[in-house]
Amino acid sequence: MFYHIKELQYEAKVSRPDPVFAKQLQEVLGGQWGEISVMMQYLFQGMNVRGNKKYRDLLMDIGTEEIAHIEILSTLIARLLDNTSLEHQEKAYHSDPAIAAIMGGMNPQHAIVSGLGAMPSDSVGNRWTADYIISSGNLLADFRANLTAESQGRLQVARLYEISDDPLVKDTLSFLIARDTAHQNQWIEAIHELEQQAGDVVVPTTFPRECEKQAVSYDFYNTSRGEADAHGPWAQGVAPDGRGQFRYVPQPGPYGGPAKLMPAPPDVYDTPPSSKKRE
Amino acid sequence: MFYHIKELQYEAKVSRPDPVFAKQLQEVLGGQWGEISVMMQYLFQGMNVRGNKKYRDLLMDIGTEEIAHIEILSTLIARLLDNTSLEHQEKAYHSDPAIAAIMGGMNPQHAIVSGLGAMPSDSVGNRWTADYIISSGNLLADFRANLTAESQGRLQVARLYEISDDPLVKDTLSFLIARDTAHQNQWIEAIHELEQQAGDVVVPTTFPRECEKQAVSYDFYNTSRGEADAHGPWAQGVAPDGRGQFRYVPQPGPYGGPAKLMPAPPDVYDTPPSSKKRE
Amino acid sequence: MFYHIKELQYEAKVSRPDPVFAKQLQEVLGGQWGEISVMMQYLFQGMNVRGNKKYRDLLMDIGTEEIAHIEILSTLIARLLDNTSLEHQEKAYHSDPAIAAIMGGMNPQHAIVSGLGAMPSDSVGNRWTADYIISSGNLLADFRANLTAESQGRLQVARLYEISDDPLVKDTLSFLIARDTAHQNQWIEAIHELEQQAGDVVVPTTFPRECEKQAVSYDFYNTSRGEADAHGPWAQGVAPDGRGQFRYVPQPGPYGGPAKLMPAPPDVYDTPPSSKKRE
Amino acid sequence: MFYHIKELQYEAKVSRPDPVFAKQLQEVLGGQWGEISVMMQYLFQGMNVRGNKKYRDLLMDIGTEEIAHIEILSTLIARLLDNTSLEHQEKAYHSDPAIAAIMGGMNPQHAIVSGLGAMPSDSVGNRWTADYIISSGNLLADFRANLTAESQGRLQVARLYEISDDPLVKDTLSFLIARDTAHQNQWIEAIHELEQQAGDVVVPTTFPRECEKQAVSYDFYNTSRGEADAHGPWAQGVAPDGRGQFRYVPQPGPYGGPAKLMPAPPDVYDTPPSSKKRE
Amino acid sequence: MFYHIKELQYEAKVSRPDPVFAKQLQEVLGGQWGEISVMMQYLFQGMNVRGNKKYRDLLMDIGTEEIAHIEILSTLIARLLDNTSLEHQEKAYHSDPAIAAIMGGMNPQHAIVSGLGAMPSDSVGNRWTADYIISSGNLLADFRANLTAESQGRLQVARLYEISDDPLVKDTLSFLIARDTAHQNQWIEAIHELEQQAGDVVVPTTFPRECEKQAVSYDFYNTSRGEADAHGPWAQGVAPDGRGQFRYVPQPGPYGGPAKLMPAPPDVYDTPPSSKKRE
Amino acid sequence: MFYHIKELQYEAKVSRPDPVFAKQLQEVLGGQWGEISVMMQYLFQGMNVRGNKKYRDLLMDIGTEEIAHIEILSTLIARLLDNTSLEHQEKAYHSDPAIAAIMGGMNPQHAIVSGLGAMPSDSVGNRWTADYIISSGNLLADFRANLTAESQGRLQVARLYEISDDPLVKDTLSFLIARDTAHQNQWIEAIHELEQQAGDVVVPTTFPRECEKQAVSYDFYNTSRGEADAHGPWAQGVAPDGRGQFRYVPQPGPYGGPAKLMPAPPDVYDTPPSSKKRE
Repeated sequence: MFYHIKELQYEAKVSRPDPVFAKQLQEVLGGQWGEISVMMQYLFQGMNVRGNKKYRDLLMDIGTEEIAHIEILSTLIARLLDNTSLEHQEKAYHSDPAIAAIMGGMNPQHAIVSGLGAMPSDSVGNRWTADYIISSGNLLADFRANLTAESQGRLQVARLYEISDDPLVKDTLSFLIARDTAHQNQWIEAIHELEQQAGDVVVPTTFPRECEKQAVSYDFYNTSRGEADAHGPWAQGVAPDGRGQFRYVPQPGPYGGPAKLMPAPPDVYDTPPSSKKRE
Repeated sequence: MFYHIKELQYEAKVSRPDPVFAKQLQEVLGGQWGEISVMMQYLFQGMNVRGNKKYRDLLMDIGTEEIAHIEILSTLIARLLDNTSLEHQEKAYHSDPAIAAIMGGMNPQHAIVSGLGAMPSDSVGNRWTADYIISSGNLLADFRANLTAESQGRLQVARLYEISDDPLVKDTLSFLIARDTAHQNQWIEAIHELEQQAGDVVVPTTFPRECEKQAVSYDFYNTSRGEADAHGPWAQGVAPDGRGQFRYVPQPGPYGGPAKLMPAPPDVYDTPPSSKKRE
Repeated sequence: MFYHIKELQYEAKVSRPDPVFAKQLQEVLGGQWGEISVMMQYLFQGMNVRGNKKYRDLLMDIGTEEIAHIEILSTLIARLLDNTSLEHQEKAYHSDPAIAAIMGGMNPQHAIVSGLGAMPSDSVGNRWTADYIISSGNLLADFRANLTAESQGRLQVARLYEISDDPLVKDTLSFLIARDTAHQNQWIEAIHELEQQAGDVVVPTTFPRECEKQAVSYDFYNTSRGEADAHGPWAQGVAPDGRGQFRYVPQPGPYGGPAKLMPAPPDVYDTPPSSKKRE
Repeated sequence: MFYHIKELQYEAKVSRPDPVFAKQLQEVLGGQWGEISVMMQYLFQGMNVRGNKKYRDLLMDIGTEEIAHIEILSTLIARLLDNTSLEHQEKAYHSDPAIAAIMGGMNPQHAIVSGLGAMPSDSVGNRWTADYIISSGNLLADFRANLTAESQGRLQVARLYEISDDPLVKDTLSFLIARDTAHQNQWIEAIHELEQQAGDVVVPTTFPRECEKQAVSYDFYNTSRGEADAHGPWAQGVAPDGRGQFRYVPQPGPYGGPAKLMPAPPDVYDTPPSSKKRE
Repeated sequence: MFYHIKELQYEAKVSRPDPVFAKQLQEVLGGQWGEISVMMQYLFQGMNVRGNKKYRDLLMDIGTEEIAHIEILSTLIARLLDNTSLEHQEKAYHSDPAIAAIMGGMNPQHAIVSGLGAMPSDSVGNRWTADYIISSGNLLADFRANLTAESQGRLQVARLYEISDDPLVKDTLSFLIARDTAHQNQWIEAIHELEQQAGDVVVPTTFPRECEKQAVSYDFYNTSRGEADAHGPWAQGVAPDGRGQFRYVPQPGPYGGPAKLMPAPPDVYDTPPSSKKRE
Repeated sequence: MFYHIKELQYEAKVSRPDPVFAKQLQEVLGGQWGEISVMMQYLFQGMNVRGNKKYRDLLMDIGTEEIAHIEILSTLIARLLDNTSLEHQEKAYHSDPAIAAIMGGMNPQHAIVSGLGAMPSDSVGNRWTADYIISSGNLLADFRANLTAESQGRLQVARLYEISDDPLVKDTLSFLIARDTAHQNQWIEAIHELEQQAGDVVVPTTFPRECEKQAVSYDFYNTSRGEADAHGPWAQGVAPDGRGQFRYVPQPGPYGGPAKLMPAPPDVYDTPPSSKKRE
């Protein structure tokens, strides 16, 4: 069960309204790697943990913090949209290039749909979708997804930090960047713990290795002309799982025969192979 | 530029048709973590590499291999759908529970839409979408996404391996599982190399640390009641980036004030705060 | 900012696992009118309130309760999936019609994707999308959306209540149904208050009536043959806004002329009207 | 069955082309609350009415009118795009800030995809989706959805009315706003009639009240710190359904125990709770 | 402007309810090639026609007929769902394999969401989306899309005809199949007329041929090993546009150089090419 | 199985960076009719061919070429984004209308998400989705879809050719336009061959004509007032399939009765027809 307090986890102040930056900032609220994504991903992973109380708690705690980040960014976006009057926008468009540029850069849905409020969308207006998240029941696989999310997320906030020239906005972003630093470090630790407990780094670690086609488990296939990647650590030496030796295959060929399918029954109305004689 | 040969990278044979398993197998072809996702993700990352020839080659090579995996799975699915006649399906439904169950478990679009062919969809019929993939220009962030994809992917194929009882299908899956083993190991190596070159593990490693709110960069906020997660490695000791010490905050409070917004201009037609007097 | 406690707002127990009902129950967790929708809708509306503290509080309170409902349903779904082993599923399919039917009715993603966990999806597997929600800045418009959501939501839970025959599951559903009763009543009160404050029922109440084409503001157009709807309260008498009298128009005609467009410039490569002579 | 006449229900004239406004106007054609949504929602509800001839007629009549509104808006958008030549757009971009601003504000798909025609999309380019609509078979639930749609729709057209400075465009919009006034009034009447017939306002009115957890059916849970919403009509007095008395619960607690799940079978490859000893 | 009559364009009767076929039939109502698609595609193309009255009329007429087809299929689906009671569904699941199979094959949303009504979705539950349609302003391009839609549509209805064993349902489908025959023939005629008027078959026919890289306009590139397609009519002889001769290129090579990108500015936080020295 | 070479099939050079055109160009990479669509469509059709070796080869060859086109366009887009620095973008916005216009016209995700790389999205940012493609197993239906795709695709590239004023970009586009010329011609030939083999033009050609309602197979229904389309070749004369004569029906009426549904069982909680007496 959840509770709310009215204070923000961190300030969300702006020096002046800026509808263009409001549009850009939507990316880290409602985009693929935005705060809605990490909130939903961590909560769903946490609620689905089967029998690992410590990890459930870890996930629910960070997930609950992320709801507060949604609140910070929504407030920031709404304040960047303060004072945006609709009347005479058109007129400005035709007379004042500066205002016109701002209008062209503004998300029209901030005016028409949300009434100067934040939206659960990214910086071009795609609505948030659960396609963005994963909760698989395998914590090592999921913590890697979480580390990815914090990496992509911090990258995007850093880019927005460069675009902004408002010191108050930058201050809020610097808080979010710091929290992403914390979370990247924390997921790295959690990943290491799971890898050590399992004694393996290949997910799922419990799948019996003798059931996989071990002859190709450490091959690198150079499917292209040229071998610029032949000397990387992925192509030689002992693999990180300690169970095999990488092998660089410069000219990989097929193990299988041609892909040929039998005709469909006539009532499926596929094209029958009547043209066979003419081939 | 790309070329094709007619042989499959690995055999895709089946002991007998099985439309139910054909439906389930769609998950690892056209689902969130299926072969289309890794193919598209690696190729887009590779085509967008700016100035790192070795990594571009690495991405293009594995991406090109993944197109072959799409070919293997499509062939496997089509063969699992061999001989599926449409006539009298209804009749069977009402008389023979065994056939009825198979029809109920079959994806109707395999009959009606694709004419007994594989589809770019997951196991419940959601069409593949580029929402599933990322190419950010930051290779460390992206290689973590790639390791995630291979982890989730191998997990899903392993589950399908357990569901299947067809030795030929299992043989093909054991090849794909082995290739995922190889790719997990390879992305781990590539990640290590990038982390060592950068001397940091926090993405983006080039963002100036003094620009983030460093006071909170190593805090763990226990936003819940109970401290089951207080003793994990994410809550104490030196963080993996070697730049700070984790701090467990048992009762985190807000740094900011209440989230309060100013009224909208009247021409936006938001509800005006006329009820203020009544509050 | 938000906090979490580990206890559920209400029990989420099951008498026995039931993967088929787990699939159906997804509708009210991650479907169009599920708990994710109301949680996100109320929180976004609340965070976007401009200057009406009382309504912001109302929205945040109910929105925060809805996160707890997500937690209840996720737990319930996970427990309905307890003990679902993957091995030999295929075999059962071919030998035991009863198990086969259950497998056919199960969501394959509960096995392959989420590892026996709840998903942010509906009962056929469509991922949750922010297309489902609205936050417009106009509270009367939005509270009507909220009343709609609670009406559709209670309707769906009531249908699931009829489908289930597990007394423990039904008990949990009876709690959710009761909360929907409370919320429907509460939104109705909030709507009445806003209507009374505005002295109007037509959203947005602040749009100047003289700017609309008042001659048609109370017309009912019978665009069909037959007048079964001629005697409803929507076709005669004073309208609920008290500003006009309904008028039933049995054979409505057009006010405008034919829709005719001018040709496109040639560099757009539309089909030019060269065939004009032949018409 | 349907018929068409070539005249528009209302004029759709423009004083001058305006590709920026054409983009914005897409919102009320193909957006979440646009004319496609109400057309499809009313027709589907109407076609699914089971045994209430009067309401079926009502829904089909208004639904058929909405097709005409699609026609009006499509024509208006196409005319706002008249004379948009593609050649030298780029050049203008680099030399003339005013034209550049217009191009930046234009929807590029109006040039590249639709050839200066209207699209089934919203103002940022999201394609229309049936995620936006509902037809539930319960008319009270659905009429509330319809009242919501007309409220959100009129709100959006009113905002566009403010943005526009073209008297001809404003005239067309004033027609659509008036029709939304009519439809809001009409759905309100239809809702009242259904509520009176049912003798209840809680959907579905036929669900047996003794089957819900009545002890909590009128509770308001203050899940936050602070009680700004304690004195609203939703927190005290008799509820609108006349069956209970609101109760304000200032510090609501959980009714359930902790959410704990049992481990998954090993063949699902979830993380096993082996770390239990370390907790 | 549009009008409605209460009679169906064709009967939509069923011999008995059949919820499994109701689910399958959704494909041709709300799927990629269903009636919603052709209705919306033709109406949007028609409303966007610029200056070709005859073609506008053609499109609006067929588009208006398609609304009637939506009505037929919605009625058919609703009748296939008649008498579907929710109570005791679960119970049946566990005791009666035949009923269980039917429930497993039923779309759960027909019970939970639409209340035994048709939905704007396909046979696996994907909601209809305007991604399925096109209106480009170029009539030859669009009529080819229309011919495609009628071809795929008739194919799907024919497959459903084979699946069904209900003579009344088959009768309705035979009407829809016949109308698709008519429409395929009609679009073929319209295509021929446009091709003859243009004197070309390559869309857009008005693009100046000297602006394309004519050296490769008739090449066939054999990008694979093996030449099974070398002797088709696409590889030799005069091309259908009469402007060139096909040329089969057995081993096509690249015309361009390697794809190499310059580094990104540092403030974008892409991975810098620092590893260059190590390549 | 597939292979890659590092050279582009054609040059992808630019005279100068141009982030606005980069955004527009995304349409033909990741839009409905872009190169991802044709690549995926042809490969899926090819992999699903059942027993027609020649057509499988044809599809795989052109599909493999299309992967190279993705590579060309991705490279072109990345180069159009060269040198786009993020710092001070905001500042420019407020001071320099020309730069402001460019920023307003730029896709913000090119900066924030992809780090100056191409994306699998269209020109307004919609992610690519497999909703765009079809592989039906019926080659005539699918080749018509392919001809449509090449027609819409060439149309869009031609429009972009007009917008661009960069001779190097235009040169690359002229190559893609020429390849679309080739592919349109080639699909036309393949279509003719299939039609001749089948002796029919109506898909599916193998469906028994006596099973369709032949009385209406050649009717044209004039569902509107006015007969502008009465004299087209679709309304009179022998139909292209040679099996019937078109018939123009100036005032088509219904063949069926009114669409009336029976009430739902009470446990579905639809609105019961209690209001019947009042009608």
